Amino acid sequence: MSDFALVYDHFDPGTEGLRESLTSTGNGYFCTRGTAEWEDASGVHYPGTYVHGGFNRETTILGGRPVLNEDLVNLPNWLVLKLRIEGEEAIRLDNVELVSYEHSYDIRLAMVQRVLHFRDRAGRETALRSRRFVSMAHSHQAGIEWTLTPQNWSGRVEVISGLDGRVTNQMVARYRELEGRHLDPISPRTFGPEIIALKVRTRQSNIYIAEAARTRVFRGGEPVAVERDLHQMQDYIQQVLAFDVVQGEAVRVEKMVALFTSHDNAITETLSAAGRHVRRCPGFADTLEEHASAWTELWEVCDIELPREPRVQLLLRFHVAHVLQVCSRHTARHDAGVPARGLNGEAYRGHVFWDELFIYPFLNFRLPDVTRGLLLYRYRRLTEAQAAASEAGYRGAMFPWQSGSDGTEETQVVHLNPLSGQWDPDHSHNQRHVNAAIFYNVWQYYQATDDREFLRDYGAELMLEIARFWASIAHYNPERDRYEIHGVMGPDEFHEHYPGAEEDGLRNNAYTNVMVAWITDTAPRVLSLLPGTRRAALRARLQLTDDELHTWAEMSRKMYVPFHPDGIISQFEGYLDLEELDWEHYRAKHPNIQRLDRILKAEGEDPDRFKLAKQADVVMLFFLFSDQELRALFTRLGYDYDPALTRRTIDYYDRRTSHGSTLSLVTHAGVLAGLDPGSSWNRFMRALDSDIGDGQGGTTKEGIHMGVMSGTLDLLQRNYVGSDVRDGILYFAPTQLDRLDGLAFSMQFRGTPLRVSITGHELTVHALPEGFRGPVHIGVGGEVRELGAGGSWVIQLR
Amino acid sequence: MSDFALVYDHFDPGTEGLRESLTSTGNGYFCTRGTAEWEDASGVHYPGTYVHGGFNRETTILGGRPVLNEDLVNLPNWLVLKLRIEGEEAIRLDNVELVSYEHSYDIRLAMVQRVLHFRDRAGRETALRSRRFVSMAHSHQAGIEWTLTPQNWSGRVEVISGLDGRVTNQMVARYRELEGRHLDPISPRTFGPEIIALKVRTRQSNIYIAEAARTRVFRGGEPVAVERDLHQMQDYIQQVLAFDVVQGEAVRVEKMVALFTSHDNAITETLSAAGRHVRRCPGFADTLEEHASAWTELWEVCDIELPREPRVQLLLRFHVAHVLQVCSRHTARHDAGVPARGLNGEAYRGHVFWDELFIYPFLNFRLPDVTRGLLLYRYRRLTEAQAAASEAGYRGAMFPWQSGSDGTEETQVVHLNPLSGQWDPDHSHNQRHVNAAIFYNVWQYYQATDDREFLRDYGAELMLEIARFWASIAHYNPERDRYEIHGVMGPDEFHEHYPGAEEDGLRNNAYTNVMVAWITDTAPRVLSLLPGTRRAALRARLQLTDDELHTWAEMSRKMYVPFHPDGIISQFEGYLDLEELDWEHYRAKHPNIQRLDRILKAEGEDPDRFKLAKQADVVMLFFLFSDQELRALFTRLGYDYDPALTRRTIDYYDRRTSHGSTLSLVTHAGVLAGLDPGSSWNRFMRALDSDIGDGQGGTTKEGIHMGVMSGTLDLLQRNYVGSDVRDGILYFAPTQLDRLDGLAFSMQFRGTPLRVSITGHELTVHALPEGFRGPVHIGVGGEVRELGAGGSWVIQLR
Repeated sequence: MSDFALVYDHFDPGTEGLRESLTSTGNGYFCTRGTAEWEDASGVHYPGTYVHGGFNRETTILGGRPVLNEDLVNLPNWLVLKLRIEGEEAIRLDNVELVSYEHSYDIRLAMVQRVLHFRDRAGRETALRSRRFVSMAHSHQAGIEWTLTPQNWSGRVEVISGLDGRVTNQMVARYRELEGRHLDPISPRTFGPEIIALKVRTRQSNIYIAEAARTRVFRGGEPVAVERDLHQMQDYIQQVLAFDVVQGEAVRVEKMVALFTSHDNAITETLSAAGRHVRRCPGFADTLEEHASAWTELWEVCDIELPREPRVQLLLRFHVAHVLQVCSRHTARHDAGVPARGLNGEAYRGHVFWDELFIYPFLNFRLPDVTRGLLLYRYRRLTEAQAAASEAGYRGAMFPWQSGSDGTEETQVVHLNPLSGQWDPDHSHNQRHVNAAIFYNVWQYYQATDDREFLRDYGAELMLEIARFWASIAHYNPERDRYEIHGVMGPDEFHEHYPGAEEDGLRNNAYTNVMVAWITDTAPRVLSLLPGTRRAALRARLQLTDDELHTWAEMSRKMYVPFHPDGIISQFEGYLDLEELDWEHYRAKHPNIQRLDRILKAEGEDPDRFKLAKQADVVMLFFLFSDQELRALFTRLGYDYDPALTRRTIDYYDRRTSHGSTLSLVTHAGVLAGLDPGSSWNRFMRALDSDIGDGQGGTTKEGIHMGVMSGTLDLLQRNYVGSDVRDGILYFAPTQLDRLDGLAFSMQFRGTPLRVSITGHELTVHALPEGFRGPVHIGVGGEVRELGAGGSWVIQLR
Repeated sequence: MSDFALVYDHFDPGTEGLRESLTSTGNGYFCTRGTAEWEDASGVHYPGTYVHGGFNRETTILGGRPVLNEDLVNLPNWLVLKLRIEGEEAIRLDNVELVSYEHSYDIRLAMVQRVLHFRDRAGRETALRSRRFVSMAHSHQAGIEWTLTPQNWSGRVEVISGLDGRVTNQMVARYRELEGRHLDPISPRTFGPEIIALKVRTRQSNIYIAEAARTRVFRGGEPVAVERDLHQMQDYIQQVLAFDVVQGEAVRVEKMVALFTSHDNAITETLSAAGRHVRRCPGFADTLEEHASAWTELWEVCDIELPREPRVQLLLRFHVAHVLQVCSRHTARHDAGVPARGLNGEAYRGHVFWDELFIYPFLNFRLPDVTRGLLLYRYRRLTEAQAAASEAGYRGAMFPWQSGSDGTEETQVVHLNPLSGQWDPDHSHNQRHVNAAIFYNVWQYYQATDDREFLRDYGAELMLEIARFWASIAHYNPERDRYEIHGVMGPDEFHEHYPGAEEDGLRNNAYTNVMVAWITDTAPRVLSLLPGTRRAALRARLQLTDDELHTWAEMSRKMYVPFHPDGIISQFEGYLDLEELDWEHYRAKHPNIQRLDRILKAEGEDPDRFKLAKQADVVMLFFLFSDQELRALFTRLGYDYDPALTRRTIDYYDRRTSHGSTLSLVTHAGVLAGLDPGSSWNRFMRALDSDIGDGQGGTTKEGIHMGVMSGTLDLLQRNYVGSDVRDGILYFAPTQLDRLDGLAFSMQFRGTPLRVSITGHELTVHALPEGFRGPVHIGVGGEVRELGAGGSWVIQLR
């Protein structure tokens, strides 16, 4: 199990408090706020982030994305747990001498453990082990356990166990000028002598949140009689548990917690639900066992084994664990989307972008019902997207670039540049390509699962309305005999418009236009997959005319794609006319040029003037589509498709990309997999390291980066193993064979579980008899085989 | 389309008001309170029920079962719509002279229409057509339309359009002593000149409910400029629209309505969501068209054609329409259960009983995702059922006989006898057989759909925990070498305990014990259907031991079933010792003896003393299981199974059953299908008529009876067509061929759509190519065929 433990080895106690808290290692639904506190070198105070530069700061989470409406709301309770010895001030890491300290994160159980040995001012030495987890088995449940052992003393201690509803959103320094208070107090309550509870309500969205905690003390498995003293205010409640401890005898403190919101099902009122739940909650050990069992089942389908690369192994599992916490069945059934920063931080205010594109491929082949639930999140916001399209003068559905609970556009219109202190205009809402990603996601889910009911009831409507949006934002240019799209941005956020131009956006972003060519070709196929009555009903309901279908067919053959004279795809029309940047100059001058836009703007320069990119844009096409698909796409468009162009195009943009989004590393690593294995692997390693190593210098403390975490898993599956579904066949085309020796993982294709492994130059695909749903078609190169229950195919590669 | 219209022909205006309201013909989620009012002969005032003795009283609904916590809550808005002519008092049916009146319910669209022609005191004659519906396309949307035509006058009218949050629960006379106020006012609001809105909150469960209404007036398709006058209080808001009308010129008033609750997804705050929704809402005609399109899709899969029996045809469709409104995708995705009285009335306070048993078979073969959603309603309450079992000293899950939003037992402990005015003790919570029904429902869903993912993720856990409950409530009697269950009640509610006994319940209710024998045989099969890892994980999580599995195996062979000496199955142990009732006496004395218990108790007698039953109990076994299954069950139990016994057992209990539950008619009609077609058909007709004809004399006005409505559909499919899934094969064994000539309907078996029809003595099963999911196995008698896409089998019967 050592592969599953992450031990933080460069601990610096700093001013970290000993106030215990739940960790963020929740299941994405139960969430509360961490409390370990920290000041960095500049004196900035952080109330806790998850993993920061290898240093675990506990966490701030919010979870309850489902319950959120206005950006991120800190859930109301700091699960205060403090220790006082002999009536002295509460123990903090800065008022004791640490004899030893170990802080570890058990990836397998998503559990944080700390083992401390400290000496207080009176010379008393005490050992303290803390463990805490948020249950994956019961989404309302969490637990903290302290094991205290006086080393050289006996005496009286007090444990303060509280629920604090006064929390605010303060985690992201640059947001602190914004209103951080989002909770109105409702009431504290007790349920018998052992249970305290607190209820609050979000200010704007009127969501009630209640938490209850039961604190007990044990010695040698037996309950310890403690003296309890209650203190409560409208927004805070605590118990002080006083009891005697004896030198060398361990006592265990258990704080079991339940959280409910008014969005929960199967309850009446939140406070009583929380109280009742925690009253019935078993002890820490039993609860942990159930939690562990749920994780065991998850690892069974989601683990990736790569024994020969221990660090890669560890980080892949680290990422799997995080993806599974944010995208769990619990979140999927609670109308939760996938916020770009997971449930671990307040950055981006919990907004949902396009990261799903990098997350669903992993889930589609393992936990497809989670993808399905998350796609329904989009479906439920279709009405809002339709209204947005209509209000902007388009047809169909226009999903917003950034959105929250109600599905409206939440993208900021000004953006603080920390380098200049200026608020710059922000046009990033013009990233209409998020609509292409949603269309792609539905199609990929369908390809992996063959879930025709989803396509029929929800997916097709989403896809058709998105296709229609693209047809309405595009226009026909008779001079070129091509369809064009103006006024949008690609994924590269450094280019918002032409230098000095008044109007937003760019003309004919290549990524967008090629995606639209693919969408307008695919949408009619979606229609043809529907039962006739459903097709007729949907067309009638949407008033989808033959003329529109004709336009789609035209667009699929006539979308305009800009090229440079040398055949390289131009990021957008006019890109070639931009100035080259002196990259050497900026690299020499700045240790990190990922956010080159901020550097340039702070110098009074306009990033729009230069041939530069924050992240992969054109290159995304080579990531999302196989060579075969791209060839078909370009051929249908009447453009030459030269395979050699792939490498040249990638190289061209690689030289001009700051990789200011961690996703860019994933994309480039992916497209280079077969072309330049060494370079690809290096980028993969950087991507793997980006959150654990805080590769962007300070952003991880504001929340993990879901896209890159899951992107590393996607890249492994999509590019390194080369899996791809075409025409109902799951193809494999592995690269990086030297490094992937020993790789083994499970997939599920159209309901049938598969075991995929690589040994040397052999790829083995095994259709497991257990849970077998039906024969599946597997392809390698030009060969396709059908695997029945228990069937295997050992393929010699190269 | 005339088959789809129900015209109420014996209208009596009484004191019915002209205050318009939404009808209950909602989709089971959007709901509001009806307003047409009525006083019955005794002067009791009813604020409106749905269909009462052929008289349509508009409706009281609550919908939002999902949002309900304490019993039924009237949603806050009476959608007040009143008419004043020339400043006089508002038009009511009792202050005008009705020249003509037609009131119809369009079953196909679940739309109510009224066409009135009235003469007011000033001699003005006016025609008024009203139509209203709750959208099946958009669950938040509803609309009312008035078309007003002055016949012999011109002048000024005022239309009062309001939202009234002061509603209370008053519909059921005998509940009126209970607290009927469940709403706290929050605030009224306007959104521009045309839209009024109101927000309230439920008192105990803290659910916010907001409704917004946009009222517009049109003449000849053009908007009419109206003078608007606003009046608002904290719990009421209205607009008065004043405008001129001209003799012979029709004006249309459209009141479009949106309703949101704080349980809704994809919103922030309810009031703003409602306002925004109704602002964007198209006009009445377009909204109605979308609604109609959604119903067209539903009828496509759910219609039952029986052209040779027009009345049966009409009532089957009437029942289909009601089932689809209560059990729609909208309810299924909102954590809604299936209340026994649908969403149409306040009786039983919205509680969920066991009616699902009669509802899901129809849905399983047509809208399986709706069943799936409704089974998840039970799954989400598994924790509560486990706690209930544990608190009662049992293991596993003990689902309550009556429950509401949080899944706790809600069965009343005293019950008002309207005949005596006494509150009698009520022991009906001992109907543990609801747990057998839930187990059966999951299994039937799985049989019809082959949804292994549901079984794996949810269904198996539900079933195993229910099996375990039965194993823990049962005990082994070494004298008999049998397992027995004491202290429970069967479906027959007249027998709560032995005469004069202190303790609740009876010993060895045969229905319960046989169900348990089947459950303990089936549960291990469920386990064996799971993938090995899931099976292991679930067993570990539930701590399900080999000993328990052994006990199940034992119970499946050794459950005790009581018999009379002549081989008739005894309803429970000791039933034979009870006294015979003088049925002739009571039939002569009382026009209706369905509620014989109340009659006896009012006479000071104890129903427990007699051989009588409210409804089918033992007989249920012959309804739920095929002859083959029962034979296997009894043989495994070591009891003789004599087919002749079926008829004798049914006859025996038929003579001793008052059919005080409408479900009893369905059950008896079902089991008699092959034995006594004429008697079966007569009972089927009575069951069909029971709500439309208010067969129980006054209960329909308190809400429809979901069980009997859907039971008639179940009976048709289960007994008259004789469909039954065994070992993955869908068998048909039609009866009643003479009456079913011309029958045609659609089914869906394991994803593949089928068309089933009967012509003369031919049964045709056709596997539709459209939407074809895979070959299906169809059986008739001993013959089984596989049908591929487009395949048909024409079977000669008899």
